[in-house]
Amino acid sequence: MGHATRERVVDAATKLFAEKGHTGVSLQDIADGSGIGISSVSGLFSDVDELYGAVLETEFGLYAARMGAVFEGDGSPQEKTELFALAMYDIHKQSPCFFPLFYRELLNPSPFFEPVVKKNIQRFAYLSDNNIARGIRKGQFKRGINPAYATMILAGMHHYYFLARRLAESLLPEPATDEEYAAQALRVFLTGLKKEGEE
Amino acid sequence: MGHATRERVVDAATKLFAEKGHTGVSLQDIADGSGIGISSVSGLFSDVDELYGAVLETEFGLYAARMGAVFEGDGSPQEKTELFALAMYDIHKQSPCFFPLFYRELLNPSPFFEPVVKKNIQRFAYLSDNNIARGIRKGQFKRGINPAYATMILAGMHHYYFLARRLAESLLPEPATDEEYAAQALRVFLTGLKKEGEE
Repeated sequence: MGHATRERVVDAATKLFAEKGHTGVSLQDIADGSGIGISSVSGLFSDVDELYGAVLETEFGLYAARMGAVFEGDGSPQEKTELFALAMYDIHKQSPCFFPLFYRELLNPSPFFEPVVKKNIQRFAYLSDNNIARGIRKGQFKRGINPAYATMILAGMHHYYFLARRLAESLLPEPATDEEYAAQALRVFLTGLKKEGEE
Repeated sequence: MGHATRERVVDAATKLFAEKGHTGVSLQDIADGSGIGISSVSGLFSDVDELYGAVLETEFGLYAARMGAVFEGDGSPQEKTELFALAMYDIHKQSPCFFPLFYRELLNPSPFFEPVVKKNIQRFAYLSDNNIARGIRKGQFKRGINPAYATMILAGMHHYYFLARRLAESLLPEPATDEEYAAQALRVFLTGLKKEGEE
């Protein structure tokens, strides 16, 4: 019973927690979902909370690695804003459980909210705030927009698209693609922040 | 046992469903929360599903009335876009359970998702799409932005602010107010859509 077993348990648990929330899943559900016996699951994780913590650590670890890459390197503030948005769509594709887990924590925070969720979100929000502040100092973005508000506006445009996927197909023109929505949202945001548009 | 009793039951149920979701609440919880005996509650609603349906109908009814007012009258497309955003903040203040109930339906749709949630959201999204299309035809908003995407971008800026309230106080500068965030989001959106900013 090695790494592969643990991974199968964590994978099955990730899907179940994303679908049902951390209070709606038992170790038995996870055993059934992973095809691993309940005694092996219990040997790896003493209870559902420990397993849920492991899932959040894994998912927010992947998120941190992906978002961290955005703010490295020496691109312009505008380029980094574009990379920030594109990274959100990559995460949505590569870790489809990440956003549901995040939204569930916002609606019903677990004991892991402060140490895992908030800590990671704050870290990247702060990097984005600094990037927008840099754009303002360099005269690329207009003054008068608070960088922290701008980060939340930028994130919100994309988050609602993920949250409202069940609605998107009836609200958006066919065939709507992630790339097309992301491109239009970025265009509105960057034009909205452009120095030339200064009022 | 008249109108007032029913209202107390529905009010208590609304808060509990917003906090815990429609599968996490029993008729006994609602009896306890309302201070009305379980037999009276059962006399009014045969089961939790019926009561949950009544709560969604009431909440989406208030939402429909408030949002409907936005698109009446003969304001300009820009003015109606501003009223659309302000109406969201009014709803958030006056019916604080509305958005959590909506977000929970997006994550875990109930049988009421199609007939109540989707029906109402589609209706107002459609009015907003038409308003933005009108702004484009009148030359007030630039071409190249799809009206349906623009509506989702506008809604998303504000929805994430409500969803991430637990994070907002640590992410936004103090003292952040709804009015200030709404004003900055609108400014980015309207500048982003302005004809003058056409690329």
